[in-house]
Amino acid sequence: MPQSSLKSTGRFDTICIVGVGLIGGSLAAAVQQRQLAARIIGVGRNLPRLQSAQQAGLIDDSVVDLSAAAAESDLIVFCTPVDKIVTGVREAAAHCRPGTLMTDGGSTKGAICAAVTGAMPADVHFVGAHPLAGSEKQGFEHANADLYQDRICVVTPHDDSDPVAVAQVSEFWRQVGMTVIEMSPEEHDNILAETSHVPHFVAAALAATLRDETRPFTSSGFRDTTRIAAGDEQLWAAIFQGNKTAMLAGLDQFETQLRELRGAIERDDPETLVESLRAAREKRESLE
Amino acid sequence: MPQSSLKSTGRFDTICIVGVGLIGGSLAAAVQQRQLAARIIGVGRNLPRLQSAQQAGLIDDSVVDLSAAAAESDLIVFCTPVDKIVTGVREAAAHCRPGTLMTDGGSTKGAICAAVTGAMPADVHFVGAHPLAGSEKQGFEHANADLYQDRICVVTPHDDSDPVAVAQVSEFWRQVGMTVIEMSPEEHDNILAETSHVPHFVAAALAATLRDETRPFTSSGFRDTTRIAAGDEQLWAAIFQGNKTAMLAGLDQFETQLRELRGAIERDDPETLVESLRAAREKRESLE
Repeated sequence: MPQSSLKSTGRFDTICIVGVGLIGGSLAAAVQQRQLAARIIGVGRNLPRLQSAQQAGLIDDSVVDLSAAAAESDLIVFCTPVDKIVTGVREAAAHCRPGTLMTDGGSTKGAICAAVTGAMPADVHFVGAHPLAGSEKQGFEHANADLYQDRICVVTPHDDSDPVAVAQVSEFWRQVGMTVIEMSPEEHDNILAETSHVPHFVAAALAATLRDETRPFTSSGFRDTTRIAAGDEQLWAAIFQGNKTAMLAGLDQFETQLRELRGAIERDDPETLVESLRAAREKRESLE
Repeated sequence: MPQSSLKSTGRFDTICIVGVGLIGGSLAAAVQQRQLAARIIGVGRNLPRLQSAQQAGLIDDSVVDLSAAAAESDLIVFCTPVDKIVTGVREAAAHCRPGTLMTDGGSTKGAICAAVTGAMPADVHFVGAHPLAGSEKQGFEHANADLYQDRICVVTPHDDSDPVAVAQVSEFWRQVGMTVIEMSPEEHDNILAETSHVPHFVAAALAATLRDETRPFTSSGFRDTTRIAAGDEQLWAAIFQGNKTAMLAGLDQFETQLRELRGAIERDDPETLVESLRAAREKRESLE
């Protein structure tokens, strides 16, 4: 079967990218650069924006109707905000052909994979993914074909995932340049709460303490520590809400560290304070 | 009196800089560049390091004995860690000539100014200062004559400060390129707790949550948010301990924001969550 043979090499006839912003646009650029598809359909709510992305050469077709695009696609990649993915997958699933693969780029996986499990037609497969790549910038104008290069992509099979579909989706992410790590949606959400969602939350809480009177007295430390608080609030509220359980557990861990450090100051215990700060410094330096 | 007339123009015969690292070395470079002194004595515990700074052209003399250097100086600037400043001021005060001015670059002011008040000989004056300038780098090798240019210096007169000494110290910091703002040591400490000390503390607590298993899943957000946690633990422990009251009050404010945001997640209240994140984003953007 020619279609299967195309898929087994990681190449697709038609790839549909839903949400052509920085993430979706960069994916389109990477797919083109690596010649992973004969045709890329871009799907979005805003036709003029899609047409601009098409004029910029990122996509071959601009389509507002996801159902129509799904019916013509072999692989559908959802690059929308996390709270829009499940609706999109369900709509696409109702209209796509047997054999169609779906994946996504959402920052939360548990709720999405659970909502999709069991809701797919026979021989249509959704395999969740989270490419750990991004940028402060927004919009396809900043699309970068190398955004995914040498970064990690977490692929999250769920209990009834089709092993062949998992292998094909993993191969797709590898072909855009990523190192694929498989884990359960729940494990993904626990880890990302710690490494991404809680840090964003903490940066926002810190930025919220800023007052007009104190602004002139900030320096690079405050700026660095709160930089990610400039992220889009709708996107991040959906991530926090979509990863509620792991977020709250991650916040518990952070608050435990905060209480330990605070306790050392309260009881005038410089040895513990220095030791805790030293451990924190070494952990931070391990990232360089 | 020639000496007074020199001071009134902001120029000094001999300036002593105690602690010739990045901060003290940059100050020496700025003093030279702006020709604010005929001679710069560098004081430190490590004679070979001082001699290297002298060979690099930053200072004219390398002296380990603060008492001896103080006896020859018109202005003494303490650029040591905050927990070493009071001891240094007292030692210098016991050996310097009448008319000698002292200031410092410490990140806390209340405890230092309180400990020094009333402990000075007649006609020897200490006026606390905090130049809001710094760098992740350490050591005089990274000294930069423009480090202080166009930055804010908080000068903190205390109750029995001599107004002429305050004016002379303020003029010195202006002459190295800074905008001087005067406020009480307590007000300084409250503001800097919010804008600098609590952010550092929060970054350290966040860095402390990192685990070996989760390290590969960090990205630029975690790195930005924890960058200042790489700071020297001895320096920062002394700052936290030296600004204990304001630190704890600033942490209370941060924890209040944290609880508000957390509450919105816990009770599934996306409107409040989005609104709080929006406010945080706008505060962060006000810094650009």
